Amino acid sequence: MPQDCFVCRSDGFTARTSIMVEAGGAEVAARLLRSTNGLVAEGEIGLSDEAWSKLGISDGDAVEVRHPQPVPSFSVLRKRVYGNRLERSDFTGIVSDLVAGRYSDIHLASFVTACSAFPLDLQEMIGLTHAMVDAGKRLSWPQQVTVDKHSVGGLPGNRTTPIVVSIIAALGLVMPKTSSRAITSPSGTADTMETLAPVDLDIDRIREVVARQNGCLAWGGAVQLSPADDIIIGVEKVLDLDSTGQLVASVLSKKIAAGATHLVIDMPIGPTAKIRTAHAADELSYWLQAVAASFGLKTRVLPGPGTQPIGRGIGPALEARDVLAVLKQQEGPADLASRACELAGALLELAEFVPDGQGLALAWQTLESGRAWQKFQGICEAQGGMRDPPVSTHRQVIRATHSGTLRSIDNRQLAKLAKLAGAPAAKAAGVELHCRLGEAIKDNAALCTVHAESGGELDYALQFYADGAAVFGIEG
Amino acid sequence: MPQDCFVCRSDGFTARTSIMVEAGGAEVAARLLRSTNGLVAEGEIGLSDEAWSKLGISDGDAVEVRHPQPVPSFSVLRKRVYGNRLERSDFTGIVSDLVAGRYSDIHLASFVTACSAFPLDLQEMIGLTHAMVDAGKRLSWPQQVTVDKHSVGGLPGNRTTPIVVSIIAALGLVMPKTSSRAITSPSGTADTMETLAPVDLDIDRIREVVARQNGCLAWGGAVQLSPADDIIIGVEKVLDLDSTGQLVASVLSKKIAAGATHLVIDMPIGPTAKIRTAHAADELSYWLQAVAASFGLKTRVLPGPGTQPIGRGIGPALEARDVLAVLKQQEGPADLASRACELAGALLELAEFVPDGQGLALAWQTLESGRAWQKFQGICEAQGGMRDPPVSTHRQVIRATHSGTLRSIDNRQLAKLAKLAGAPAAKAAGVELHCRLGEAIKDNAALCTVHAESGGELDYALQFYADGAAVFGIEG
Repeated sequence: MPQDCFVCRSDGFTARTSIMVEAGGAEVAARLLRSTNGLVAEGEIGLSDEAWSKLGISDGDAVEVRHPQPVPSFSVLRKRVYGNRLERSDFTGIVSDLVAGRYSDIHLASFVTACSAFPLDLQEMIGLTHAMVDAGKRLSWPQQVTVDKHSVGGLPGNRTTPIVVSIIAALGLVMPKTSSRAITSPSGTADTMETLAPVDLDIDRIREVVARQNGCLAWGGAVQLSPADDIIIGVEKVLDLDSTGQLVASVLSKKIAAGATHLVIDMPIGPTAKIRTAHAADELSYWLQAVAASFGLKTRVLPGPGTQPIGRGIGPALEARDVLAVLKQQEGPADLASRACELAGALLELAEFVPDGQGLALAWQTLESGRAWQKFQGICEAQGGMRDPPVSTHRQVIRATHSGTLRSIDNRQLAKLAKLAGAPAAKAAGVELHCRLGEAIKDNAALCTVHAESGGELDYALQFYADGAAVFGIEG
Repeated sequence: MPQDCFVCRSDGFTARTSIMVEAGGAEVAARLLRSTNGLVAEGEIGLSDEAWSKLGISDGDAVEVRHPQPVPSFSVLRKRVYGNRLERSDFTGIVSDLVAGRYSDIHLASFVTACSAFPLDLQEMIGLTHAMVDAGKRLSWPQQVTVDKHSVGGLPGNRTTPIVVSIIAALGLVMPKTSSRAITSPSGTADTMETLAPVDLDIDRIREVVARQNGCLAWGGAVQLSPADDIIIGVEKVLDLDSTGQLVASVLSKKIAAGATHLVIDMPIGPTAKIRTAHAADELSYWLQAVAASFGLKTRVLPGPGTQPIGRGIGPALEARDVLAVLKQQEGPADLASRACELAGALLELAEFVPDGQGLALAWQTLESGRAWQKFQGICEAQGGMRDPPVSTHRQVIRATHSGTLRSIDNRQLAKLAKLAGAPAAKAAGVELHCRLGEAIKDNAALCTVHAESGGELDYALQFYADGAAVFGIEG
């Protein structure tokens, strides 16, 4: 709004005041920016694209601007800040205000901090999970058993989901998988899948695909499962806080809302993965199982090595090619095939499709027989047609500058390299690894290839590497 | 920046990403807004007026935009969030990063919340106060005794400071008073004083005025005493959190930085004042005295009634007229004269200028003899010349709608009425009270007059009252 407009003066709106903008029953919370250069005229207001769309207004429509009404759950938030435990109904109030856009960044940060400074107990984790499930849509499926998987993340590549869904659905179990796009990583499952088939399906289309194929590989964003989750995660990332309670509620609320009855959680452990020690993995597993149990969701956590990427490709199309190679049995990365079969096997056992100890073998058999590949093609066709992942237009090999043994890979630096090259927005961009931990590396050997869709982005990534990014630890 | 510009894509800057903008060694923390309508061209960036001025750049200059560097004190902040006590050096790190603009709203909210969820202990309060003093300028004075006063606020009017300074300085004690402008109230001492004399003095000018007159009544903003204070207060207001530790550090850091050796704190107690009970006043007084003692700052807290405004005027010029009437002994509000003399008397005793029990009488004598009025004129002249406060152009009397006894005044609603009328930006605007608690009110009697500088603002305030603002409680 103009700096000295009548409304700002009389309502005392100064720079960065929290305000509510209302039109036709809809409202959005906003921060006021004041224009001093005539960009916005007296009596006018400029809004973000998001606000335009949430308010459903057009140019020239009237809006009402006012101080935020007292938000009912702010007193509940203060109660938690001052050290009192919350009931399920308290969390319902907080989460519904938060999803309605009534929480500013400041209030969100206060909620996230309060739940870390004084950690959630089991009843609070259950209460928060309930509130998060209730705040969004909830799917249900005719089948008694509906399986799902989740990865605690932090590992580039590791694109097991399309393979797991293909194996499981090929065997006749129902796995209606919805996945996210990347938030801070070089690719999310939805980004990778989008290079192979359409993923932007609404609930009705998802139901159709699952009815025909037992499974799907869709983007979850259109389905509005646990919308509070993305909001909370956004603030946690900025603060680099990761409280166990919020992580548990985040993972489980999405799966419960998606209608899952059986869940396997992939938990890579490594110094540059999200979970760094076996002890941390044990603790997180305990809380995940305890909260899941209260919802009747059968859950198994599968810890695994998280010291290096799984698969060769990092970035949407590069990962898609790994997935295709594994499914087609055309010399795909062995670690990716093997991890996918472990996860699928665990799901088969958890869902009591096979007795314990027989899941892994059945998963391998389904993959090797080509049935998983057939199923994957069926799912892609049902989602709107299979397509070839794009190919990068610019690429450069990064080579070793001395010989030795590859002792470490920094997953975070590697992810950054792929992002600087343009992933995930540039679908063909990313990094293709040519080495594995423990390998003997000769001087000048190819360590990886950086792929990009523009020369500028390729240079940007190469400059980051040249500036000393410690991606590969070669000792010798 | 443009939504899909090269830098956003390659660096992964999405809407509301926290970024740093750098130019010529200066940097500011910012939140990225992305333009989709061509307002900003590829390769261009738009900045706030504040950022332009902090970076000291002109149109066409180059800036560097990057992800924020890891801020060293974020790990200290996380340590506090996870329940560990902090050392003085930890607070130094946090406060200096905060003053350097490296803390986003999200980090500020996390810090404020963490200090409430797990309250600061005495050592931490001392550490935070030290850090806040060290982060700004610090004044020192040749005299061994330098006195100051502070009000814990929440009461409209109560403009005792100009009277107290005039009495104290007339008696030869040094009182170099710096005051704030209103943040959320209808007027701050600096706003009121500005209607009587220039207040925007730099440190050298303040020294000159004090050397000549023993006292000053300047705006503190140009002097940069405890700059962290305003930043922390801004976030506390949004969260409606008021932790004792942060309040103590806020008040004392400003006074210690201003070079005070003796401090009297005015603490009005009432249901709509900041401090609501005698118990809360006792507790806060304990912490204020304990922390002040560790700095060698002699402090006395003066609790007082906070059930209604002190003085008749609320708003810069209206309060200024009360101050002038008291100083000139021209039928000024008795409660304002009396409270000012109590505070001045307490300061005279605390500074051992007179024995205990004799301060109040000397203060009254100084006021009634006209010496305080002479001193006030001297200070105004030294600050650049005395002037007459402006007079409102629009006004309307608010009348009682039934007879009875005035049992309550809601200070918060009254302050809001004054702000809606335009105070403090419109200097002549505000509310002039015509009634006091306990008075018998006749039907249609004048309760107050609303003053404004525009018809629109007057209507705005009157509408708020007509809509049922519960300012006056008349029973009978």
